[in-house]
Amino acid sequence: MNSEYAKKIDNLKSKLKSYPDFPKEGILFWDIFSALSDGYTCKLLQSLLVETIRCKYPDVEAVVGLEARGFLFSFSVAAELGIACLPIRKKGKLPGEVLSHKYDLEYGSDVLEIQKDSVRPGLKCLIIDDLIATGGSIGAAAQLLYSCGAHVLGSLVIIELNSLNGRENIPDVPVHSLITYD
Amino acid sequence: MNSEYAKKIDNLKSKLKSYPDFPKEGILFWDIFSALSDGYTCKLLQSLLVETIRCKYPDVEAVVGLEARGFLFSFSVAAELGIACLPIRKKGKLPGEVLSHKYDLEYGSDVLEIQKDSVRPGLKCLIIDDLIATGGSIGAAAQLLYSCGAHVLGSLVIIELNSLNGRENIPDVPVHSLITYD
Repeated sequence: MNSEYAKKIDNLKSKLKSYPDFPKEGILFWDIFSALSDGYTCKLLQSLLVETIRCKYPDVEAVVGLEARGFLFSFSVAAELGIACLPIRKKGKLPGEVLSHKYDLEYGSDVLEIQKDSVRPGLKCLIIDDLIATGGSIGAAAQLLYSCGAHVLGSLVIIELNSLNGRENIPDVPVHSLITYD
Repeated sequence: MNSEYAKKIDNLKSKLKSYPDFPKEGILFWDIFSALSDGYTCKLLQSLLVETIRCKYPDVEAVVGLEARGFLFSFSVAAELGIACLPIRKKGKLPGEVLSHKYDLEYGSDVLEIQKDSVRPGLKCLIIDDLIATGGSIGAAAQLLYSCGAHVLGSLVIIELNSLNGRENIPDVPVHSLITYD
């Protein structure tokens, strides 16, 4: 991670846009898609993700993408690195035998699922998503992977919202983010 | 598209799995994820998608991924080709000003949305998804893109289910599929 890497991060940061009061009042929504409408930024982001994984998680065997925005990056880095691309989806979306994990939301609860056949015990997994806020979904994904016997190396996100204490909320899952906002 | 390409297609085909009666009775579900749990197949599929686009749609300026499985491939090929990656999502998921298109399902209807800022008139777009069945979602996505003034070059899918007449149902949208099933 040299000065070239830092320059790329600054360049990516300059392309990100936020939207106040989305999806509901009081939330400032950081939108990864705004940056992806520029082809140069797509290339830049892909190279940053791959470089970061090679440096921080060199032993990874499977990239686990969280539905839906995590899917954007799970296949792209898996294809580049020649490793597995595994999905974690909301209940009822994956065929075959699945393992489930129920977790609490601010109001109510949600269920995540993974295909049982796709994870062998000890598989070295990296969870990928666009953003970490409170860490709820990454924490739940890690629990689901643990229940399969997987080895969760950590998580990689593009944007981290410091004020929501995501990484403190999931102390057993190392978090690496490209860009942080207070 | 030479014999090497044909061999890659055969290899990919050998990795695909189907599940009867998912998500409901009478439907045979072809699952792209089963193939992606193998890193070699991820690399193979990415190279097939990129090679196909370079050959069939050399002028493309933007790859439009349909939520959620289309997202897997839209960013990966956009990053490789250095072109835009645009999302089409279900109602209420995209921030900022959006354009919408309502379309009919077997029972009821659904609404697709795209970010208005991301499409300029004449933008040469390629719609990407994992599978074409009846063509409903690809046809609706094309209508949405037309309403933005975009130029829809066509669509690229990995799997085509011939018996459901997808390509006949959307005659104005050329369909290219890597693998077809009767």
